[in-house]
Amino acid sequence: MASTNTATHPEPGKVVEKAAQPPEMRAPAEKPVSGLFGLGDVVLRFLLFASSLVAVILLVTSKQAKLIPIPIPPYLIPRTAKFTQAPALIYYIAAVSIAGFYGIITTFVSLYALLKPGRYPRVVSNFVIFDVLLLGIVAAAVGAAGAMGYTALKGNSHVQWTKICNRYDYFCRHISASISVSLFGSIVLTLLILLSIYSLSKRIPKQTY
Amino acid sequence: MASTNTATHPEPGKVVEKAAQPPEMRAPAEKPVSGLFGLGDVVLRFLLFASSLVAVILLVTSKQAKLIPIPIPPYLIPRTAKFTQAPALIYYIAAVSIAGFYGIITTFVSLYALLKPGRYPRVVSNFVIFDVLLLGIVAAAVGAAGAMGYTALKGNSHVQWTKICNRYDYFCRHISASISVSLFGSIVLTLLILLSIYSLSKRIPKQTY
Repeated sequence: MASTNTATHPEPGKVVEKAAQPPEMRAPAEKPVSGLFGLGDVVLRFLLFASSLVAVILLVTSKQAKLIPIPIPPYLIPRTAKFTQAPALIYYIAAVSIAGFYGIITTFVSLYALLKPGRYPRVVSNFVIFDVLLLGIVAAAVGAAGAMGYTALKGNSHVQWTKICNRYDYFCRHISASISVSLFGSIVLTLLILLSIYSLSKRIPKQTY
Repeated sequence: MASTNTATHPEPGKVVEKAAQPPEMRAPAEKPVSGLFGLGDVVLRFLLFASSLVAVILLVTSKQAKLIPIPIPPYLIPRTAKFTQAPALIYYIAAVSIAGFYGIITTFVSLYALLKPGRYPRVVSNFVIFDVLLLGIVAAAVGAAGAMGYTALKGNSHVQWTKICNRYDYFCRHISASISVSLFGSIVLTLLILLSIYSLSKRIPKQTY
């Protein structure tokens, strides 16, 4: 009798566990969101890395030397414009470099997690915290560089700050292109955060909503 | 035989559903988190409003008139330093005003939702999107104002931008205090987003984690 019972219900604990979480019930509700989300996550993180890399390269190659006229002999002296002359741009390159470094690391982690879906949600919940912090840092850097760039372009007559972009055109073009690209990077970071939040809210059961 | 089977297992579909989501199992896990979270949310949103208000007041009251020496008669002319002379500070006051306005509105909505807990989660999931966008805007504004303030404090000898804080001390004190307060405001915004994400991730059932 006992042996027959065991045969019809082999290992009852395991059967109950399986019934509570039937894999074929959860799978269709979770899989497509997770897969699509993971793909979007990887693409956006790679875009963050690529835009940061372009922004850093544009900034580093912005150096421009020019002969500036002066009233005393020899009448022309070479003067160089470099991004290291502005503290705001030093902060900017530091922030964008961190964003690029973070971007390439998390691209690989996210890609790895996409290929092993079981461990994905825990990885994401941790990344989104750093995404938010990095958004604050990168947005502040873009704002700081933008303010300096605008002053360099237009000058400020109230405090006699002369414009410099009429003389250093190559320098200014590189700076403005770099700021545009990292503005795109900070929009990508915003989308990453919104994607994570959307994915988190999708995984909350409907009845608690 | 068939009727006996039905009597021992009445409506098998319903029983399975109830077993999968027992209400007394979810209730104690959700209630305290939601209440504590709601209270923290209201407090942080009020802090955001308060810090934005202080930052705007400090900026608006920063106007300073001074007699500046000039080499020709009458040798002293009155010159006024105002925040409207710097485009970065105009963007800054716009961004901080929006943050303060958003802060006071969402404080009341969040307070209302705290008193009627049933509708709370839906309200929060919508707010966090605007929180993220606003963090980007406010952080960029703080960065822009900070870059201008640093240049006003230290000058930039490479491009002959003179420092102005040695003459307009009252003006500069107000600007720097305003930037500090809104830096605190953007940290509050960051905490708000992290709190929302934490609350969302708490509401995901453990087995799908």
